[in-house]
Amino acid sequence: MNLDTLGFLAGTVSAIVFLPQVIKTYQTKSVKDISFLMFSLATLSVILWLAYGIILENKPIIFTNGCVLILSLIMLYFKISYGKHEKNK
Amino acid sequence: MNLDTLGFLAGTVSAIVFLPQVIKTYQTKSVKDISFLMFSLATLSVILWLAYGIILENKPIIFTNGCVLILSLIMLYFKISYGKHEKNK
Repeated sequence: MNLDTLGFLAGTVSAIVFLPQVIKTYQTKSVKDISFLMFSLATLSVILWLAYGIILENKPIIFTNGCVLILSLIMLYFKISYGKHEKNK
Repeated sequence: MNLDTLGFLAGTVSAIVFLPQVIKTYQTKSVKDISFLMFSLATLSVILWLAYGIILENKPIIFTNGCVLILSLIMLYFKISYGKHEKNK
């Protein structure tokens, strides 16, 4: 496997790491065990990577972190939204 | 802020993204809402990045992904270990 293929594969897997959590949380609507701080840090981290990728005009960095940003924001929304319902139960 | 500082900051934040989740899960011992597949994908992703970093001899990539690997493996261990206890309750 050449280096570009390895980097592409690593970037693709990174992009979808949060997807199973988004699907699980959407199905269960339960967020008690999820760390809000974790997804806040993830959001901060990908915003920094996005800035880095934009300055370098590096499309793989922009694409990967763009995907992770969307999934992180969905998880923060779920945590706030479903978290409220759990407290009200 | 120069580009190296931005990359270093992004890498440092990335390295500790899973830390709040590890701390929360260690304290609550509750893993019901956590996606096992998410941390499996995270582990696969950082192993690929580690291989990429080792081939490139890029220390920041190796350091960042080394930290994430340790935290991911801890979360997988928690999910399996605490998950068993939850089922036995």
